[in-house]
Amino acid sequence: MKPLAIALGDPAGIGPEIVAKAWSQRKQRRLAPFFAVGDPRSVKAVWDGPVTTLLEPAQATAAFAQGLPVLPIERSGDIAPGQPDRAGAQTALRSLEIATGLAQTCAAGGLVTGPVSKAQLYDIGFTHPGQTEFVAERFGVAGENAVMMLAGPSLRVVPITTHIPLAAVSEILSIDLLVAKGRATARGLCRNFGLEAPRLAFAGFNPHAGEQGALGREEIEIIAPAVDILRAEGIDATGPFAADTMFHPRARATYDVALCCYHDQALIPIKTLHFDEGVNMTLGLPIVRTSPDHGTAFAIAGKDRAEPGAMIAAIQLAASAVAHRRLVLACPAA
Amino acid sequence: MKPLAIALGDPAGIGPEIVAKAWSQRKQRRLAPFFAVGDPRSVKAVWDGPVTTLLEPAQATAAFAQGLPVLPIERSGDIAPGQPDRAGAQTALRSLEIATGLAQTCAAGGLVTGPVSKAQLYDIGFTHPGQTEFVAERFGVAGENAVMMLAGPSLRVVPITTHIPLAAVSEILSIDLLVAKGRATARGLCRNFGLEAPRLAFAGFNPHAGEQGALGREEIEIIAPAVDILRAEGIDATGPFAADTMFHPRARATYDVALCCYHDQALIPIKTLHFDEGVNMTLGLPIVRTSPDHGTAFAIAGKDRAEPGAMIAAIQLAASAVAHRRLVLACPAA
Repeated sequence: MKPLAIALGDPAGIGPEIVAKAWSQRKQRRLAPFFAVGDPRSVKAVWDGPVTTLLEPAQATAAFAQGLPVLPIERSGDIAPGQPDRAGAQTALRSLEIATGLAQTCAAGGLVTGPVSKAQLYDIGFTHPGQTEFVAERFGVAGENAVMMLAGPSLRVVPITTHIPLAAVSEILSIDLLVAKGRATARGLCRNFGLEAPRLAFAGFNPHAGEQGALGREEIEIIAPAVDILRAEGIDATGPFAADTMFHPRARATYDVALCCYHDQALIPIKTLHFDEGVNMTLGLPIVRTSPDHGTAFAIAGKDRAEPGAMIAAIQLAASAVAHRRLVLACPAA
Repeated sequence: MKPLAIALGDPAGIGPEIVAKAWSQRKQRRLAPFFAVGDPRSVKAVWDGPVTTLLEPAQATAAFAQGLPVLPIERSGDIAPGQPDRAGAQTALRSLEIATGLAQTCAAGGLVTGPVSKAQLYDIGFTHPGQTEFVAERFGVAGENAVMMLAGPSLRVVPITTHIPLAAVSEILSIDLLVAKGRATARGLCRNFGLEAPRLAFAGFNPHAGEQGALGREEIEIIAPAVDILRAEGIDATGPFAADTMFHPRARATYDVALCCYHDQALIPIKTLHFDEGVNMTLGLPIVRTSPDHGTAFAIAGKDRAEPGAMIAAIQLAASAVAHRRLVLACPAA
């Protein structure tokens, strides 16, 4: 397997520290080889371990045994952990762009992205809602066909809508949107996890999934018809279910992924259960892309307090997905 | 302490079985004395243990050692576990009414209510949304001053709105409603749990608590002003917080109760963490009232499959609350 490319994210955030700490635990956690893409100084500012600066990605696997391999992104200005600036945001964006390109050209086996500050990126002209949409656009994948999935050891969730006001969600939900997300999710679970017949459970929108329309009609008019269409295509989709009873252990055993109508419906259960080990994976791309499910944590950057658990989980999940993609499977609706 | 009165709920549901099983575990689980209010035949139909029919509640404590004490509600017709009918709904309603009255007149130390079928109750003319509102009305407590709280071993949540379409929640949220619920919650945690300065954490409505208005304005216009009013009254209220990061173990340690804007925001985390042991407690009443946080489960009634864990937790929490109410405390805004 080609080494994974890890974009370090904002150099003033905890990205450089958690990638370095992940490298330190490469043996105990059996991590596949990876290399960082970013400013080597941002690593050295927060970590005393060995750093190997690469001339090209092909050197990464050999270098991985000796130190953290970093493909350098040059930048001007000083490095100050915890103090984001425009030069840092430029570095984060270039790291993301180069790491994506290396995965696209197969110089890297897959892509892991470190935490960025959306506010900082918007400030330098970044026009995508987030890294997921940026990467999808680089591959020409339409938004409704790129799926953000959050995965922990005992739960996977897909928020069908994300960063919009809750009162606007109902207007955005549509049969077409749910069907597109359902198809991409089913294919993505097959390709990245080896599940040939993944079980998709759709959450209802209203309390008690609307109680046959008494508490809202989104279930009747949008979710149930979408489930019917997916089932007619051979996808094992079920629901809509009352969201509050979907996430206890016995319920979680009945599906492979929960598709949720809005941000908090998906994020509350995954973060309640797996706050320190959640991984964000983009389904629907030609490459594997994962990310730790947390932010830049500027407040603790450079203080040796950042936990690498989610970054390690993101590296492990990316490597596992790359391996699964080599299998020849009959994926749903493929 | 006077014995607790337990309304058995719908006689065709699992109420009679879980109350009987709770009595069987009275020694291991150190349960305070209680007596059931309902049709003794509904217990005998699903349980082989000893039942003592009471003439009056004063006999209950002595009878508790020998068998499950039942204050009988007469009803016509046969008992068929799993097959609800109108006569059973009438029995459930009379049980609730009598048990409430016994708590009101101090013949019982507190009230525990078994599961009822709302559909069955509506069918016989019940006009309250649920048992909580029925009991509140019996005490003349206005809806906004009666608070439904769900409690498990590591989390307490209050849904500020409950069984309404999600798209309608934003219109119903108001500063006045949040302040009223906050006051009743603070007093209730003091009186029933002995917390003199309970910590109330308010959840945001939108993703990321609205991100300073970018993702919705309910936080700015409703929740933050309500928190300010409560703080000015000396109540330790905080928030609004991003709901998805409120329910992991470290976050839960920072508050005593989470006040949530809508049904699933509160019910998803409590049922994810404590599905089999959640207790519903009504705050703001002159008496203690608890209930297991599950339904009638008609499908498994009479099959000896019902787990009494939540009923036992409801009995324990009621007894604990009765004990705490004897303490002389300086409760907030009391």
